[in-house]
Amino acid sequence: MPPESKTLFPVQLVGAGPGAADLLTLRAARAIEGAQALLYDALVGQDILAMAPQACLRIQTGKRAGRPSMRQETINRLMIRLARRGLRVVRLKGGDPSIFGRVGEEAQALRRHGLAVEVVPGVTAACAAAAQFGLPLTHRGVARRVVMTTATTQDGELSMDWAAAADPEATLAIYMGARAAPEIARRLIAAGRSPQTPLAIIHNASDPQARLELTTLARQATAPATPLGATPALILVGDVLSAADGLAAAGGLVGLAGAA
Amino acid sequence: MPPESKTLFPVQLVGAGPGAADLLTLRAARAIEGAQALLYDALVGQDILAMAPQACLRIQTGKRAGRPSMRQETINRLMIRLARRGLRVVRLKGGDPSIFGRVGEEAQALRRHGLAVEVVPGVTAACAAAAQFGLPLTHRGVARRVVMTTATTQDGELSMDWAAAADPEATLAIYMGARAAPEIARRLIAAGRSPQTPLAIIHNASDPQARLELTTLARQATAPATPLGATPALILVGDVLSAADGLAAAGGLVGLAGAA
Repeated sequence: MPPESKTLFPVQLVGAGPGAADLLTLRAARAIEGAQALLYDALVGQDILAMAPQACLRIQTGKRAGRPSMRQETINRLMIRLARRGLRVVRLKGGDPSIFGRVGEEAQALRRHGLAVEVVPGVTAACAAAAQFGLPLTHRGVARRVVMTTATTQDGELSMDWAAAADPEATLAIYMGARAAPEIARRLIAAGRSPQTPLAIIHNASDPQARLELTTLARQATAPATPLGATPALILVGDVLSAADGLAAAGGLVGLAGAA
Repeated sequence: MPPESKTLFPVQLVGAGPGAADLLTLRAARAIEGAQALLYDALVGQDILAMAPQACLRIQTGKRAGRPSMRQETINRLMIRLARRGLRVVRLKGGDPSIFGRVGEEAQALRRHGLAVEVVPGVTAACAAAAQFGLPLTHRGVARRVVMTTATTQDGELSMDWAAAADPEATLAIYMGARAAPEIARRLIAAGRSPQTPLAIIHNASDPQARLELTTLARQATAPATPLGATPALILVGDVLSAADGLAAAGGLVGLAGAA
């Protein structure tokens, strides 16, 4: 580490959790409250941003599906410049920074410029969605694994042709794939997953307006692809969705409104 | 829901996160601060328990590897009895309740007795371990999935014979399996994973005393099985462990001490 970094603060890559401000960790809340420069993804809500000091510089970096985002190099350069000025820089990311948060790329860029990095973990969307609707992700005798995955490759191609897709003991949590839900369902069936396997799409996990749609792979496979707008959505697939009685207790199976 | 439940508080199944008290969510902290009866797993630390009001009933339920635990039925019965007395009951679990937290079983038992259930998500150990050592769990072009799994079946048999084990694009996070690390490494190689794949064992993730041992599947496969005592340990397996420069930057590769 170059000597200059002794006078600079480590850049904090902070998980903002699934959305609700009270699902921040205490450590994340403290980091935001002490921030002098906050670079935040588009999905981070106003009530979380309001926790930063009034004088804090706030910079939106985009990263909302289907909208223009700042290029990764631009984000890196900004963080480096602000940290080198001696500011306490907080990079705020939806969910957990290590899962689909590009923490590797950003930490690498910062360290190459002699800046120390601290990562603050967060609650990832799959855990928040499961909690809100009383669903387990693992369940004895039904689901021994959780696979958190994306549905697309770097080039935006759909990619569900992996061995784990057919694993009946795995609950799949598919991030950023809701637009392609019918095609995903078809590929999972083709990969060997039973067509009767439950599939849930959860919109706005952790928000009071969260909504869960429960169906099966077979039914989703023939559903029309629906435009989802800009709300974040997560797909869960697995027998665990029917094994627990959470859904029934929470009030129904299809189009279920947000439960407390 | 039976009419009596109107006068009873929902039982809160709360994720205590990976260990460090400041990695509780704000919502979890508030639940603990308002608890009248706290049933907690052995891995939940004293500083977290100290956040409950002085008059709060504290009941340890065990669940530490290799030590006697309260039976699940006993835990369920206790929660039901305390909630029916009108107490605010908080069931505190290490990590996230939906991942290896038996939230399905406990929620089912509570609902069958007419009690409402609220689940508060938490930071799971894999995210905390990755954050502490600056490791990503996903990384563009290297790891597109995270598989959170246990290594053993209900009967305690080792079980790594699943298709996803060989998936080179998956980072594996193996919970509660560190005792069997050499055998796990052998089975992953047998399943088709490259012997050169990095494997890390993280002890006490999120604790200042956390420790990371980095090796490869090939080297771990011939290592003597070490008794691990009662400290929790997590195994991470995947090319992502070498793809990022986090480890090198944090000070070395083997026997690395806890980084901030």
